[in-house]
Amino acid sequence: MDKIELSNTYRRYIGCLNAQDWARLGQFVHDQARHNGRPFGLSGYREMLERDFNQIPDLHFNIALLVCDPPFVASRLDFNCTPRGEFLGLPVNGKRVSFSENVFYRLRDGKIEEVWSVIDKAAIEAQL
Amino acid sequence: MDKIELSNTYRRYIGCLNAQDWARLGQFVHDQARHNGRPFGLSGYREMLERDFNQIPDLHFNIALLVCDPPFVASRLDFNCTPRGEFLGLPVNGKRVSFSENVFYRLRDGKIEEVWSVIDKAAIEAQL
Repeated sequence: MDKIELSNTYRRYIGCLNAQDWARLGQFVHDQARHNGRPFGLSGYREMLERDFNQIPDLHFNIALLVCDPPFVASRLDFNCTPRGEFLGLPVNGKRVSFSENVFYRLRDGKIEEVWSVIDKAAIEAQL
Repeated sequence: MDKIELSNTYRRYIGCLNAQDWARLGQFVHDQARHNGRPFGLSGYREMLERDFNQIPDLHFNIALLVCDPPFVASRLDFNCTPRGEFLGLPVNGKRVSFSENVFYRLRDGKIEEVWSVIDKAAIEAQL
């Protein structure tokens, strides 16, 4: 998969998340996927995303920066949303917050196999 | 600057930081550099780094992942160090902590012009 294909695949993956089209998630996420060291597999990865959308009904992934160098993708994702209750251990309770996630992915066979994600928790704290 | 040159330049930049060779910082950082939206310039950028090393005497930058696509660099940096006193608002007080920073850079004229950095504060909290 070359750089252009990788970029297109990643954009389709983000589209799949925003559509909450979980039936298609397996087109983008490997059966053996790991997320921040956790061996989620495809099913655990899907559960994480479903939990995220349950906690943040207006969750939307916006690609701010995309850097591709096969087999790696690095993306800066921007969020502007209203998490219910506690989010990342913070009492957000439906307040609108803006924050970013800087995240790396390694793909295998055209699918996300490993994810290293950091969410800007300090930015959220500063808005509460 | 092609991908290989960009990667080599970035590795030399990290070497410059680890050597605290501030006289050479201007080879890698643009006069108009911005860091997380703050218009630091080269002098403010240097002051930020000097403050970091003052607060964390055993600070060392370790490149865990490097993704280059000119003019962008994305890097995952790993740290294992003992910050003095408060760090990111957390009472670390000399305890050894391990954490990562996922960071994007845009270069211009071969120098870092803009930085978007997120440090994994939640990982540090979990170790206190």
